[in-house]
Amino acid sequence: MLQPVRLPLASADLSLFQNAVAAYVATGSAISSSTFKPTAPLLPLRRVPDLRTHCHDPSLQGIVLGREDAVEETGSPGHPAVLRVTPLPDGRMRCISKWLQVGYLGLVFCKSVMDPRLGSYSKLNTWRPCCMFRVSVGTPQASNYLNLGKTYAIKQRSFGSAATDIPRNPAFSKLNADDISYFRTILDERNVVEDEDRLSAANVDWMRKYQGSSKLLLLPKSSQEVSKILHHCNSRKLAVVPQGGNTGLVGGSVPVHDEVIINLALMDKIVSLDKINGILVCEAGCILENLSLFLENEGFIMPLDLGAKGSCQIGGNISTNAGGLRFLRYGSLHGTILGLEVVLANGTILDMLGTLRKDNTGYDLKHLFIGSEGSLGIVTKVSVLTPPKLMSTNLAFLACKDFTSCQKLLLEAKRALGEVLSAFEFMDSHSMDLVLSHLDGVRTPLPSSLYNFYILIETTGSDETYDKTKLEAFLLRSMEEGLILDGVVAQDINQSSSFWRIREGISEASIKVGAVYKYDLSLPIDQFYGIVEEMRNRLGEVAKVIGYGHLGDGNLHLNIMTARYDSDILAQIEPYVYEWTSKHKGSISAEHGLGLMKANKIHYSKSPETVQLMVDIKKLLDPNRILNPYKVLPQSCFN
Amino acid sequence: MLQPVRLPLASADLSLFQNAVAAYVATGSAISSSTFKPTAPLLPLRRVPDLRTHCHDPSLQGIVLGREDAVEETGSPGHPAVLRVTPLPDGRMRCISKWLQVGYLGLVFCKSVMDPRLGSYSKLNTWRPCCMFRVSVGTPQASNYLNLGKTYAIKQRSFGSAATDIPRNPAFSKLNADDISYFRTILDERNVVEDEDRLSAANVDWMRKYQGSSKLLLLPKSSQEVSKILHHCNSRKLAVVPQGGNTGLVGGSVPVHDEVIINLALMDKIVSLDKINGILVCEAGCILENLSLFLENEGFIMPLDLGAKGSCQIGGNISTNAGGLRFLRYGSLHGTILGLEVVLANGTILDMLGTLRKDNTGYDLKHLFIGSEGSLGIVTKVSVLTPPKLMSTNLAFLACKDFTSCQKLLLEAKRALGEVLSAFEFMDSHSMDLVLSHLDGVRTPLPSSLYNFYILIETTGSDETYDKTKLEAFLLRSMEEGLILDGVVAQDINQSSSFWRIREGISEASIKVGAVYKYDLSLPIDQFYGIVEEMRNRLGEVAKVIGYGHLGDGNLHLNIMTARYDSDILAQIEPYVYEWTSKHKGSISAEHGLGLMKANKIHYSKSPETVQLMVDIKKLLDPNRILNPYKVLPQSCFN
Repeated sequence: MLQPVRLPLASADLSLFQNAVAAYVATGSAISSSTFKPTAPLLPLRRVPDLRTHCHDPSLQGIVLGREDAVEETGSPGHPAVLRVTPLPDGRMRCISKWLQVGYLGLVFCKSVMDPRLGSYSKLNTWRPCCMFRVSVGTPQASNYLNLGKTYAIKQRSFGSAATDIPRNPAFSKLNADDISYFRTILDERNVVEDEDRLSAANVDWMRKYQGSSKLLLLPKSSQEVSKILHHCNSRKLAVVPQGGNTGLVGGSVPVHDEVIINLALMDKIVSLDKINGILVCEAGCILENLSLFLENEGFIMPLDLGAKGSCQIGGNISTNAGGLRFLRYGSLHGTILGLEVVLANGTILDMLGTLRKDNTGYDLKHLFIGSEGSLGIVTKVSVLTPPKLMSTNLAFLACKDFTSCQKLLLEAKRALGEVLSAFEFMDSHSMDLVLSHLDGVRTPLPSSLYNFYILIETTGSDETYDKTKLEAFLLRSMEEGLILDGVVAQDINQSSSFWRIREGISEASIKVGAVYKYDLSLPIDQFYGIVEEMRNRLGEVAKVIGYGHLGDGNLHLNIMTARYDSDILAQIEPYVYEWTSKHKGSISAEHGLGLMKANKIHYSKSPETVQLMVDIKKLLDPNRILNPYKVLPQSCFN
Repeated sequence: MLQPVRLPLASADLSLFQNAVAAYVATGSAISSSTFKPTAPLLPLRRVPDLRTHCHDPSLQGIVLGREDAVEETGSPGHPAVLRVTPLPDGRMRCISKWLQVGYLGLVFCKSVMDPRLGSYSKLNTWRPCCMFRVSVGTPQASNYLNLGKTYAIKQRSFGSAATDIPRNPAFSKLNADDISYFRTILDERNVVEDEDRLSAANVDWMRKYQGSSKLLLLPKSSQEVSKILHHCNSRKLAVVPQGGNTGLVGGSVPVHDEVIINLALMDKIVSLDKINGILVCEAGCILENLSLFLENEGFIMPLDLGAKGSCQIGGNISTNAGGLRFLRYGSLHGTILGLEVVLANGTILDMLGTLRKDNTGYDLKHLFIGSEGSLGIVTKVSVLTPPKLMSTNLAFLACKDFTSCQKLLLEAKRALGEVLSAFEFMDSHSMDLVLSHLDGVRTPLPSSLYNFYILIETTGSDETYDKTKLEAFLLRSMEEGLILDGVVAQDINQSSSFWRIREGISEASIKVGAVYKYDLSLPIDQFYGIVEEMRNRLGEVAKVIGYGHLGDGNLHLNIMTARYDSDILAQIEPYVYEWTSKHKGSISAEHGLGLMKANKIHYSKSPETVQLMVDIKKLLDPNRILNPYKVLPQSCFN
């Protein structure tokens, strides 16, 4: 059993922890070291006693102990999915694990350690703790970046809309012993999981905002197994929730009540890669980062990239129509996904797994399943068009005097940088101020002044020298025209990551203020910043309002921070922010989906006729409504 | 009444023609010349008597007479849609008209003429014929390029699959006088068209392969009018066929029996353009080329371009999920269409007209209507993301020794040219030989030898000098590696168009041999050329088999030419070609759709479960099946 130990920690139960460490190390040492495959250099050894201080931290939720060679039960041999620890250039650690959640402490044991002076590995005789970290930050993006040995207290959870209490649909059956016996006949016994610890991890989202009470987690290994599970659940009217990496932000991937959880983590095989056209076919449980690493070796990249890549599964990405960092350049998944295999509620396997760029034979049904959050079917296989990997990347950090200049700069950048433009990110002075005040070691690249607006422009192309010359010429021209007040181009990868650290650190910094009300809006470009100013005026001194996001995609992240969570303040924000967005023909969910959080708010972005057709299609594809119930569409539509 | 005269011509009825010319000129001269807006320089005057020789040509189908300022009834003031004549650099004329069809002769009258010596316009007192042409070629692409004063005999129509005889669905009502009266109350009277001439044009496709017998053409001017029409037709069970520019290749846009034709040509307004993000909103009847011209003035381009752009409507492009020449660079319409307004069979107006790049609120239903060929709803408004116009284009014409080299060259081009690659077109030596033998004035750019394969590579970027240097360096490297045997880069726009003329002329050349069996296939890259060799072996001396197409998109055009149409030969080709394509997981319709021609062949590319779900969705959205009946899905599925 190569699984990590995960201990919920009641306040500061140090002895429990120490016993667990001892037991784990003891068991661990019994395992052959021949399975050890170092995937990245490890940081110098740290000592177990350091953990004691953390155990007295009242905000600590529990401890995860894992070995460097640990293979999760839900993983497969050679995929050290639990705790692969990679140091980043800026000293942070990237840690890939589905087991980690905010508020947990992690300790990694190894039998090998890098000598920092020699740069070589030494073999140890026993399992020893090699690094320790605290899962400390509030976005799935940041949750993979762990500050080694540091702790951040989590002062307050971040809030968007509060989840509503939805009664259990009485039409659903309750799981019984016969169901479990049946599942044991169609799946490997160990993939029918009733273990409380594992269920409690699967019942809650990573923000710990949504919590269900499922009694069963199923881990199918093939589309046929998924089909048999759904066929049974449908005939028995057992509700199910499809779960991928469980990194969603709107409560779409955890049960609301006692839905059976179906996780495709064991379906993580790469089926094929057409090395001429870059067409990848894989199972839906593949972790995005694993696909990225596989492709990069072959000279391609995934057309999507997001912070949660170390945990999220491609099937989940597709079901939520994930946007992310490469959207500006490579567009929506509706354009890059070439085919899907989907299992419908009644167990029918729908083979739409084309690998062709062009296919106009009948209705293109795969699009129904892209972004429907698992409520119409479970994606089991995927065919995706992957762009060639380009070698040259440049990054500029710029300051603008007003929002109009930012708009104009975007237009000019699209024209002048055209085919090499790959990101155009935006943040206001309030966002910058927040990051500088709350994140250690972050400094502004433009120290001479605090400007009103900042822009990050990234180019990606095939020629280092040319791309840089082109970017610099564009920047010089824009500065002469007054669109840019100040700016700097990153000279190496360290500077690049320090620039990105500012943009990506905003979310992390915002939860340090207190309560955060987070909104993910799409807005027409002329209204993009209006809502930020509006909310600032509306709320006055009581709140700090910041605006940042993917200006190139029209995607604004509006964060409103107050000292503590307060329903009066929430009432001042909502439904006003949704009404404003609706009035200006924006979207109340640019990339996060509706899930449980915003199912009842769909009418702010969609017309009644359109919602009605969605309901009709849901009824057609899933008449018993067993798939991911209570999510996406308002329950009232089905009464 | 500013409409052109269109005369079906029984053999060589010269007197009928002469009378028509006289009558037309007489009527024409009565119209104020103040409406005249020259849109392009005109060619020198030609004389009417030249027409006489053409009138004795037994292949002549009829005559179109139009004035340069003519505004079609279905057009709008200021849009000289009938006969806008533009000379091209190579001496051909481009003529935009929905009235023109293969086998027709056109004569344009004007009151203004360019003096070729002075380059200036002179005004005339009377209407005089200024140019004459013969609509002579066999693809919608080429049909807009007219050889002034030249004729090509149409020896044989081209055949793909023969259309099947489908009995009229007895559930449909027959149109009666009450229906017509009702339509007159909801539309302008002149937009309820019963005129035989206009109906006969609308009842047949441009290839004259599919012919219906509709008694009514409706021209709504707003979504509300479309809604009222469909509401009435649905309640009366009157079948309808939505028709755009009628440039389709599979019989999807003409009636099969007596369906009411609904054409959106009067809904051709541009609603808005977001000049920062390039998001265009327009009505569905806008002609693609008009949108392109509008956008180019604003610094953007349409993400799709195709030969039929002078006639096809954007609503039709979306309904058929048109591919075309920019597909390799800008991808599918599923990625670039941001929103749609659609009227459902029961008259419900579905507002999905978002203008946002990102919107994850519920199911993305617009994709159901992209490529469903008007069988689920009628697209009335469109929102599209348009890329910035880039100024630098380069084109290389290359020779390769074998198909493996072509494949490798594609891979290398994607890597090395990356972000500037905009076309990668392919043709075999048989295609080249055909063009050189049958098209006047076409010469090979590589005269030293006839090579096995030819490739056209186009780059589009933002920097003339750099892009060219980059392309040339890539070509040099590929030549050193032996991937290219010979090649040349176009030095000016004339050379460019002569290179494109070869690739685009293949279809035109192929119909000169005799009968042509045309197949539009998507195939995985490793199987791409196999079917061409297979068919060549299978058919032996009896047929000439050529392969060409969009290699960069995996889209092969397979043309099989024989002296005459023969059902024995067809039996040797079909269903073999479909079975082969199916076996290799290809698509039997890459970009043309299924329409009437291939509705019964959908099972070669789609699984039974997938087809069943399409049928269920059709029944859900259009329970009376009034929308574009007999098309897309096999009729047997509804029994």
